[in-house]
Amino acid sequence: MTSLDDLPIRDDLRGLTPYGAPQLEVPVRLNVNENAYRVPEAVALDIVQEIARALPEANRYPDRDFDTLRGAFADYLGHGLEPAQIWAGNGSNEVLQHVLQAFGGPGRSLLSFTPTYSMYPLLAQGVGMEWVPVPRAADFTLTPEAVRAAIAEHDPDVVFLCSPNNPTGTAIGLDVVEAAAEAARGIVLVDEAYAEFAHDRSQTALTLLERFPRLLVSRTMSKAFAFAGIRVGYLAADPAVIDALRLVRLPYHLSAITQAAAIAALRHSDEMLARVDALREQRDRIVDELAALGLQPHPSDANFVLVGGIADPARTFRSLLDRGILVRDVGLPGTLRITAGTPGETTALLAAMAELLAE
Amino acid sequence: MTSLDDLPIRDDLRGLTPYGAPQLEVPVRLNVNENAYRVPEAVALDIVQEIARALPEANRYPDRDFDTLRGAFADYLGHGLEPAQIWAGNGSNEVLQHVLQAFGGPGRSLLSFTPTYSMYPLLAQGVGMEWVPVPRAADFTLTPEAVRAAIAEHDPDVVFLCSPNNPTGTAIGLDVVEAAAEAARGIVLVDEAYAEFAHDRSQTALTLLERFPRLLVSRTMSKAFAFAGIRVGYLAADPAVIDALRLVRLPYHLSAITQAAAIAALRHSDEMLARVDALREQRDRIVDELAALGLQPHPSDANFVLVGGIADPARTFRSLLDRGILVRDVGLPGTLRITAGTPGETTALLAAMAELLAE
Repeated sequence: MTSLDDLPIRDDLRGLTPYGAPQLEVPVRLNVNENAYRVPEAVALDIVQEIARALPEANRYPDRDFDTLRGAFADYLGHGLEPAQIWAGNGSNEVLQHVLQAFGGPGRSLLSFTPTYSMYPLLAQGVGMEWVPVPRAADFTLTPEAVRAAIAEHDPDVVFLCSPNNPTGTAIGLDVVEAAAEAARGIVLVDEAYAEFAHDRSQTALTLLERFPRLLVSRTMSKAFAFAGIRVGYLAADPAVIDALRLVRLPYHLSAITQAAAIAALRHSDEMLARVDALREQRDRIVDELAALGLQPHPSDANFVLVGGIADPARTFRSLLDRGILVRDVGLPGTLRITAGTPGETTALLAAMAELLAE
Repeated sequence: MTSLDDLPIRDDLRGLTPYGAPQLEVPVRLNVNENAYRVPEAVALDIVQEIARALPEANRYPDRDFDTLRGAFADYLGHGLEPAQIWAGNGSNEVLQHVLQAFGGPGRSLLSFTPTYSMYPLLAQGVGMEWVPVPRAADFTLTPEAVRAAIAEHDPDVVFLCSPNNPTGTAIGLDVVEAAAEAARGIVLVDEAYAEFAHDRSQTALTLLERFPRLLVSRTMSKAFAFAGIRVGYLAADPAVIDALRLVRLPYHLSAITQAAAIAALRHSDEMLARVDALREQRDRIVDELAALGLQPHPSDANFVLVGGIADPARTFRSLLDRGILVRDVGLPGTLRITAGTPGETTALLAAMAELLAE
């Protein structure tokens, strides 16, 4: 039998294991920051109908420039954005990969402030660029001064700022984004995958795009639109940036049915954002109640909470799993990351945590 | 206004234009080797129903390993293949990109026999590897000796053999594939995107997989399954190869609705292959009738014909377009590439060509 070691894979891949949290079937899944709510039935019906309308032409290649979808994203985002400023991909990971293929690659570097989204170093490695992790303050916040100093020291080609930050939930101020955009000679991307869950949604880097042509803001439909299974990420930036991304994307990368599904769902953004509000309440409830239990939940503007003060995270993880509750051990000492679910899921989680702490 | 030149894109991207044939709305589109037939209504209905069944869980990430779909591909391909030997992506371009990310990259080389699929050099460039084009014989055929000699001379890390070959339609014998697999120290991939259109479908490199663990066979649903708009490519190889591809794919790269659509369509493979037979007849008709008109169509095992003997391809291209018929000028002197369409489309094409030649 042939093994991976017998094959001529790239040396930098040897010994690696594939990325991804365990996909376990348990009653309460709070491990990968999915939206706890299914797409509402009326929205699902609209999606199915839009896909059905696309199918008769699906023997033809899809619209390579997905013009209709780009218009729908521009409308949804607002801030005077035009379709020419929009890009999209099969999940925001693919969008970020396009950015690194166009502006990164061998001999270039990607800087980010850790702990942050664990895919960034893997995306950097995937295009052969250097990964420069700069530690955040102990409370995971970032200041304009710290960001300016890091950029001055490392002179990166690309900077990724994740806000709200995964896995800590920390939002950064627009002054921090401005500082990065002013200091960097290269690309600054703000990954706003969780933007809709922020306490103050008006604090988005979209408001800064007009001033900084090398500033990019990425988003995803996975979270706010409950679209994790459908894989749609997108990005807003100067039209010239979009031209650059068009050079590196595989032709026809976005299928006709993916375009159709996203177009249909965006017509229901009010309804989807109402679900987001419900999840924000549960997120705040987790913070409040776990603090009352004596744990140290970090302030969060996302749909999850990084909870500190856990004596033995691996043990708590297993005890929760025994109770049918799956959370995430992201490897930060004394912490677990918990996704905000439905009120019922949150109740189950809080009850289990109270029980474990009482033991 | 910011232009592309103002941005810090990679140097090797400067001056490039995005890949892709013009997407024009004309009555007869014979330019990008799409399947002329829509997915039959009963199949489309099954696809819509399968997608509708997947939507209630689409707030969750999709099955990262797409086990059900891999089983369906193994069944469809036959030859004793197991699900563990199957990989898939959003179009075969993505599958080929995964192969080059795992086994190619900077400092490595990709060899192919030109003229061949124009994406190969772009895929090589995309992962920073060297592209080694080796010219075919004047009639575009390949012999075991020529392939052995080229591999001995260039010692490539990866070899792509396109069969039937795009844009020439040329099929290669299994003796040629064997020669490549024996001679190469690296990966040999046979791109069988058009395999279902071959005169003799039994001549597939799938039959050689058991003997060569470094042999890969890629396919696509774009052509035989009329799925160009839905973007599903796939690959069969040793399970260890699949493990390698898992290291470079983005997590959850294949959406739940893409998986659902493909699973449903594969249930109707007999019906889809009947359409393929109809297209094969039109392909042979184009070859026969254009030869009778004094042109030099190359023998084809694909759903298109490379037609030689055209005095002024650019002019013929425009004259056909004036008549509402879009074909492809692939840049080979004295040729145009013409996709086999429906009987009506083929009749329109042949009548127009007869008219132009009589002028």
